[in-house]
Amino acid sequence: MTGFAARLRSALDRHGPLCVGIDPHPHLLEQWGLAVSADGVREFALRTVEAAAGRVGVVKPQVAFFERFGSEGYAALEATLAAARDAGLLTISDAKRGDIGSTMAAYAAAWLEPGSPLESDALTVSPYLGADSLRETLTLAVRHGKGVFVLAATSNPEAAALQSAHPIDVASTEGQTVAQRVARDVSWVNGSAAFDGGLGPVGLVVGATVDRAEFGLTDEVLRATPLLAPGFGAQGAEPHELHSLFGALAGNVVASESRSILSAGPTALAARIDERAALYREHHDG
Amino acid sequence: MTGFAARLRSALDRHGPLCVGIDPHPHLLEQWGLAVSADGVREFALRTVEAAAGRVGVVKPQVAFFERFGSEGYAALEATLAAARDAGLLTISDAKRGDIGSTMAAYAAAWLEPGSPLESDALTVSPYLGADSLRETLTLAVRHGKGVFVLAATSNPEAAALQSAHPIDVASTEGQTVAQRVARDVSWVNGSAAFDGGLGPVGLVVGATVDRAEFGLTDEVLRATPLLAPGFGAQGAEPHELHSLFGALAGNVVASESRSILSAGPTALAARIDERAALYREHHDG
Repeated sequence: MTGFAARLRSALDRHGPLCVGIDPHPHLLEQWGLAVSADGVREFALRTVEAAAGRVGVVKPQVAFFERFGSEGYAALEATLAAARDAGLLTISDAKRGDIGSTMAAYAAAWLEPGSPLESDALTVSPYLGADSLRETLTLAVRHGKGVFVLAATSNPEAAALQSAHPIDVASTEGQTVAQRVARDVSWVNGSAAFDGGLGPVGLVVGATVDRAEFGLTDEVLRATPLLAPGFGAQGAEPHELHSLFGALAGNVVASESRSILSAGPTALAARIDERAALYREHHDG
Repeated sequence: MTGFAARLRSALDRHGPLCVGIDPHPHLLEQWGLAVSADGVREFALRTVEAAAGRVGVVKPQVAFFERFGSEGYAALEATLAAARDAGLLTISDAKRGDIGSTMAAYAAAWLEPGSPLESDALTVSPYLGADSLRETLTLAVRHGKGVFVLAATSNPEAAALQSAHPIDVASTEGQTVAQRVARDVSWVNGSAAFDGGLGPVGLVVGATVDRAEFGLTDEVLRATPLLAPGFGAQGAEPHELHSLFGALAGNVVASESRSILSAGPTALAARIDERAALYREHHDG
């Protein structure tokens, strides 16, 4: 079995950093002429998978928009994940789950255990209950060749106060921030084995426009860390800025775009994906 | 429409603070002689609702154990929530969701909008993306007469460093912690209207054994705040300690127990709930 880090490295090398976010927002469903229902969500997501196949390496379904329709929405998500897998796309389920003990283990099993209805290549998780509460999840991910992206420094302004706060317990290091502490507390996994292509299986969510230094997230800390970066496309950052924004870490970046792509509508979707993916590759190779 | 705060006040006054956690953990499914599957989860949860009806005022399904089985698990959860509603039980869906903007709005609609398949009386949410990212969710909850419990100071040891960290942005007050900041940033809702029984619709998750003073969560800050308190039963705190642990806030507490009750097995379950509920009431009234 090839682990997540190697699969991700290979997908990024082949297709470039663009990740297509699958966000069946009610507003987009209407724009696409689809019903605001589980059926509409299913149609929207399957068409997006079809358009993404062969054009990018990674898709990221936003779980909330499926959950909105309960069990039927989840059935649509299962179909979407299966279609993506069949199409050779890596899937990052953006669920931002976070809990403790056996509850967190149940979330991990739901998304990362082979054969589970919601099986994905990777899952986004939240560390509010302490990064160490995710320890078992990270271990399970590695065992099954899966990946995890832990929320660290996100690009939304409301988050800055919490994520740049300073822990003052005995384990903290002078001047460390919450985001840095999260990075430290989950990075042991990336260091515990030799992984291909310089990446480990435990990534962080770090906004494209975040001042990483302010959060203590230096290049050295993030060297082996896949970075799921919201903030590209409609949210402001542009493909040609990948290198100026991420420098030596540009090769670690999964650049997630949703609205900028999905707003093309179903007919122009494939062409829009081609166009955006090419913009990243152009600057990536250069 | 009676709002969540009034429904909660009435449920607590009538039945006391015990809330039955519905945690269909694989280990418990086996102990109950049920299949570790969506069908097993459904049977487990429906029997628990049946046993809880008339004995307590509130049940709290732990969403992870349903999500473990994908869309079929969610169908079981929908049946559970409907059965609880029909039985006159208040439901707190323990999902700890947290995201931003329209994504968080989709979670809020999924759980708190009347008529949604997963409609609940209240939802637990996570503030890692900033308490202000929950603003729309709180507004939607109030509009629909629903409640929200925001993770603040949880009782698990891994969480202490993050939750007691000190924000140092311009909006922070000297010595404030993350948990206190969360409480401050969501409590405007409770203050924005007159609510029955001294409670507002926005609660916090505060562990029973947490030293609230250490987190800056004083009685004054929490006066109108419903407190969802894990940590009772198998996790260590006992019903007779409710007053010594919560003092003037004892009347705000929803004391959640899961394993201590569910481990009784299906036959002895109703008797165990009666017994635990009586222990709280005994000390509550005294």
